[in-house]
Amino acid sequence: MDTKTFNRPLDLKQVMITDAFWHRQQELVRKEVIPYQWEALNDRVADAAPSYCMHNFRAAGRMMQKKQQMGETYVAPTYTFRGFEALPEDPANPDPDKFFGFVFQDSDFSKWIEAVGYSLAQCPDAQLEQTADEAIDLVCAAQLENGYLDTYYIINGMDRAFTNLKDHHELYCLGHLIEGAVAYYQATGKDKLLNAARRFADYVAAYFGPQEGGCKGYPGHEIAEMALVRLYEVTGEDNYLKLSQFFLNQRGTKPYYFDKEEQRRAMLEGRGELPKFDENEERYAYYQAHKPVREQNEALGHAVRAVYLYSGMADVARLTADDAIYAACQHLWESIVQEKLYITGGIGGTSHGEAFSFPFDLPNDTIYSETCAAIGLTFFARRMLEIKPESCYADVCELALYNTVLSGMALDGKSFFYVNPLEVLPEACYRDSRKSHVKPVRQKWFGCACCPPNIARVVSSVASYAYTENEDTLWFHLYMGSVLTKKIGAQELNLKVETEMPWNGHISVCIQAQEIVPCTLAMRIPSWSDSGSAKVVCGGISTDILWQKKGENLQVLQNSLREVFVQDGYLYLCGDWQAEDCISLDFSMGVHMVVADERVREDIGKVAFVRGPIVYCMEEADNGKNLHLYKADTDRIGTDCQNIAVEMTEELGHLMATLKIPGKRRLVAPSKKALYRVYTPTRYKQVILRWIPYYAWCNRGEGEMSVWIQSDSV
Amino acid sequence: MDTKTFNRPLDLKQVMITDAFWHRQQELVRKEVIPYQWEALNDRVADAAPSYCMHNFRAAGRMMQKKQQMGETYVAPTYTFRGFEALPEDPANPDPDKFFGFVFQDSDFSKWIEAVGYSLAQCPDAQLEQTADEAIDLVCAAQLENGYLDTYYIINGMDRAFTNLKDHHELYCLGHLIEGAVAYYQATGKDKLLNAARRFADYVAAYFGPQEGGCKGYPGHEIAEMALVRLYEVTGEDNYLKLSQFFLNQRGTKPYYFDKEEQRRAMLEGRGELPKFDENEERYAYYQAHKPVREQNEALGHAVRAVYLYSGMADVARLTADDAIYAACQHLWESIVQEKLYITGGIGGTSHGEAFSFPFDLPNDTIYSETCAAIGLTFFARRMLEIKPESCYADVCELALYNTVLSGMALDGKSFFYVNPLEVLPEACYRDSRKSHVKPVRQKWFGCACCPPNIARVVSSVASYAYTENEDTLWFHLYMGSVLTKKIGAQELNLKVETEMPWNGHISVCIQAQEIVPCTLAMRIPSWSDSGSAKVVCGGISTDILWQKKGENLQVLQNSLREVFVQDGYLYLCGDWQAEDCISLDFSMGVHMVVADERVREDIGKVAFVRGPIVYCMEEADNGKNLHLYKADTDRIGTDCQNIAVEMTEELGHLMATLKIPGKRRLVAPSKKALYRVYTPTRYKQVILRWIPYYAWCNRGEGEMSVWIQSDSV
Repeated sequence: MDTKTFNRPLDLKQVMITDAFWHRQQELVRKEVIPYQWEALNDRVADAAPSYCMHNFRAAGRMMQKKQQMGETYVAPTYTFRGFEALPEDPANPDPDKFFGFVFQDSDFSKWIEAVGYSLAQCPDAQLEQTADEAIDLVCAAQLENGYLDTYYIINGMDRAFTNLKDHHELYCLGHLIEGAVAYYQATGKDKLLNAARRFADYVAAYFGPQEGGCKGYPGHEIAEMALVRLYEVTGEDNYLKLSQFFLNQRGTKPYYFDKEEQRRAMLEGRGELPKFDENEERYAYYQAHKPVREQNEALGHAVRAVYLYSGMADVARLTADDAIYAACQHLWESIVQEKLYITGGIGGTSHGEAFSFPFDLPNDTIYSETCAAIGLTFFARRMLEIKPESCYADVCELALYNTVLSGMALDGKSFFYVNPLEVLPEACYRDSRKSHVKPVRQKWFGCACCPPNIARVVSSVASYAYTENEDTLWFHLYMGSVLTKKIGAQELNLKVETEMPWNGHISVCIQAQEIVPCTLAMRIPSWSDSGSAKVVCGGISTDILWQKKGENLQVLQNSLREVFVQDGYLYLCGDWQAEDCISLDFSMGVHMVVADERVREDIGKVAFVRGPIVYCMEEADNGKNLHLYKADTDRIGTDCQNIAVEMTEELGHLMATLKIPGKRRLVAPSKKALYRVYTPTRYKQVILRWIPYYAWCNRGEGEMSVWIQSDSV
Repeated sequence: MDTKTFNRPLDLKQVMITDAFWHRQQELVRKEVIPYQWEALNDRVADAAPSYCMHNFRAAGRMMQKKQQMGETYVAPTYTFRGFEALPEDPANPDPDKFFGFVFQDSDFSKWIEAVGYSLAQCPDAQLEQTADEAIDLVCAAQLENGYLDTYYIINGMDRAFTNLKDHHELYCLGHLIEGAVAYYQATGKDKLLNAARRFADYVAAYFGPQEGGCKGYPGHEIAEMALVRLYEVTGEDNYLKLSQFFLNQRGTKPYYFDKEEQRRAMLEGRGELPKFDENEERYAYYQAHKPVREQNEALGHAVRAVYLYSGMADVARLTADDAIYAACQHLWESIVQEKLYITGGIGGTSHGEAFSFPFDLPNDTIYSETCAAIGLTFFARRMLEIKPESCYADVCELALYNTVLSGMALDGKSFFYVNPLEVLPEACYRDSRKSHVKPVRQKWFGCACCPPNIARVVSSVASYAYTENEDTLWFHLYMGSVLTKKIGAQELNLKVETEMPWNGHISVCIQAQEIVPCTLAMRIPSWSDSGSAKVVCGGISTDILWQKKGENLQVLQNSLREVFVQDGYLYLCGDWQAEDCISLDFSMGVHMVVADERVREDIGKVAFVRGPIVYCMEEADNGKNLHLYKADTDRIGTDCQNIAVEMTEELGHLMATLKIPGKRRLVAPSKKALYRVYTPTRYKQVILRWIPYYAWCNRGEGEMSVWIQSDSV
């Protein structure tokens, strides 16, 4: 690991997103999603499943109050398991003192406050901040004196706290609480929630660890690993980094901790027969606890957990220069992108365990591809970038963001997908229980509401995926209209980025500086671009640069920069910048007809269409029913897709590039009431198919959709 | 319904199967399957899940003995539910007085004795008959004085008998007991088991029925309906037909009986809240109890249950001339064959509920296609034939028998498939839990062992699917080498049928008669034959007949018959037959390249190959891994498949026609470590693919298999 290449995201307060595409998404989050979520957290949305999240904080807060009032006469509740999701007997009048919802329900608040923090950093909003402060007061009132803060056990009985790390998500709730607290602190400077999170983290750090008597477990659902690193980076407190390391080091060691805690529970519950230890790795692959993390090389198990873990691993690898963990991260990354990634940037091929399937098993219709998993993949990608800026990570991050992450939310910000299929036949979702997890239309809210708040937090903080920096270099990973500041020692370089991404590949960067500022600007050359050029004015003098795909055949004409080179997919422009300097980048953005690796059986004989970072799909709304009867007409499409028309159109108030693709529709033989018949040559009718960006699908009612289309010549 | 067209299968004792193909199968059943099953029923197979079937009969028998000995001091057990499948705590020493296995475990014996009966009818075997008699003694010793005979409740407590018709299979056990008892009686003339079955049926007929106080329920798993008809036909006892009618008439009426019994159970168990009535039809479609049977028009739910019900409906329709039930049978038949039938004659598209999926949803890899369901389809088909001989029923019966039914058993008769996929990737069966029900290799025995004994009984009685008769007509539905006798009044017509079916379409029928016998011989014209000819010698004088597909353009030259005509796919030869007369039939048997209805999404762009009744598949053993990389090369295959070579070869001691099919294999681009790449024209290598009959797949170890193959021009 070369620590010189390390780089960190810009502070959100250093960047203002101004671009039409992303600003719109952020405004949706600010105006629709965050307020709606707040209502949902308080069970005030009439047609959505109640969250019980704030209900639980209030109940725990009341309990704390009672405890204080009663002093030593207070009798704490004794734990009884009431189900992974506890529901009130009378939904209209839930008992105000009981815990309801999933065991991890506290995290709904944490995700919300994290999104609020990012949003406030980008766009101050006094009313929202006041709501948030009041919510924080409720949450903090629920915290035990010792720092413990998970309402599930506070309300149900602390005697069983930390006895089911595998499935009871306390450490997951800690992780989200930290993430939310840090985001809110960084946006507002207010540290009440941060301090609460620290106290909980301190409690956990004392409870777990290598010391004698320290609990040797680790989270069943990962996130604490990366969250603790973040807390360490904000507070400088070593203990948090050490705890994260400890969790990583414990994970997957044998005999399995999850077996040990199961035995302990069996004893506590007085079960006759104790469960046996069993080192069969398949049992805990779901939790990525089948092997020590340094030995993991295939992405396995629950996809969200997996990428959260890998993100934490990358963080710890960077901060502790742990080459073995970094190597595991690289293997896991390759396992994902070379064998388990959907063309949309989605991950998780199977609904069983919401998990990665085996290599190249990427079904389009029974897919899982959870929105949160794509979000987690952007976390992992950015952390790999922080260790070493290689454009392959940013390519995947961009793909996931523009396609699966955005597909998770309706264009009006009011409904959400949990699962993001690449092929939908609504009838199958209703009548085929193997596809019942695939919803043909976005849902308002989920009982297990991880995806909507996760979208809110990633969209609000998208700037931190776009830019990273080290002392003297600023990396452009994603291109989006923004105004930002890069500090070079005491100097400041102000940049204004303008672009119409993702609709064309032109990017202009205007530089403002009080004096001459030496700085390297590293511009990602996207994998989707076949060729590019840059016109750079540095020190008032022009430089022209040309390259082919990925920066090959770099030609630099009339050089006014100190240095120009391409490395790992980035164009490095090292210069002494001054006011009025500018960079004009042009990345070719042709339509590409794409095929999958032949080992992906589901896509054999099929093509997909992408343009820039955008993956396209065809919908029933544009092309009628029975999309499977269409083929791409490769002959008419022409070499390099030159006969595919790109049209900028407005859909539901949203500007987007749509494609007109030459295709052909199978003429159906009149039904002879026979399911099978002797082959006669198929006849086709020439058609023009309309394709829209994948993220925009299902905004015009329910209907068929497909990303892949059959093609004769493939 | 035209009662003149009614016809019945020949008594098995009137037919002797002599043909190489079927005789081999019957010998496998007699020598391998039946003895193996007997060991399995007695839990003596080391590497198979115990059945506990005979264990339970022995336990119940001991209980009966004890009861007799103790007289009034005997205290009957009180029912406690021990699970749908009860397993012993110590598998090495199961408690000899307890019931183990599935609630329907008694039926394992009944299926076995039914197969034994058929086998003895075809091939007497004194030792087998002795074993069977001893088994019957054990079974009869378990029967209660009142006639009740289901060891599950006898052992566990009769206080809850008939309180869970929906899931506890007592009436299913009754049905199988009758089927087995009748078969054994017809083969051996011994009526001990028949009388036991009658006593149980009498008990049930008194317990259920329209009379005041009669239970108004009906079977959760159908079969009693057709079994009771069979018992009626053997005994002439009206009550059995009436009980079958009653079950049909009750089924699906609202409020649902299954809700009523659930309420009753809730009361018996003292549950606080009683379950509510709910007329949502989806709840009971699995049981075909969603609607009254006369209103059912879509094949729904558990596929085996469905076709067992439809078989019983057809029986009752025929015997009671019930046009409404017959119309429902026709609709249900059409629903299956026009929308829900695999090309292999399999049914049941989804593993969820082992059920029919929605129309045209026929996945090849996540398929269910249970062997028993294909067997049930042959039951239904033959019963529809009995009402009206239309060749479409025999076509489907033949398809199911030669493909899915036989695929259920290995060529050595020693292992079995429950699920019969049309596409298998072994890795997916192991690593993708959505396909975990699809086994890549046949299994030795199943805990729920319905399929092996079901294959045994259908193979042993295959003659009853080949021929039916009425007073003056003998129908040939399936062609197989046999010697049979048709009685016309007091006269006898002896026929000897010789054929090499399914490998060629030549059939010769030699007639022997003491005197001149007037009789109509009705020969099915198979749907797979494009043209045919017959040379008939009747009264010593020759007739030549020619036709096109399905008997169109019939030409009769030099007629020596009273009448020749084609009706509903049968060639009727009405003549006065005498010794030395003969019929020589030639059905063309070309290889057909077949496509599926365009609405079958899974098969779009693909072809399959069939020849005669045999569906073909390609296997890894012949063609290597990655079968999905192959395409059928339509150009090289040629019109009418003239370039496909048919070769008779021997595999594992079994002669079969294999195909050499021109194909092409996709040349795989060297891996660039990218899952997706810009399309470049695919290159192919010409190959010759070897295809084998589908029923013979997976007899050379584990590997990929596919029935459908991609084709450019489809």
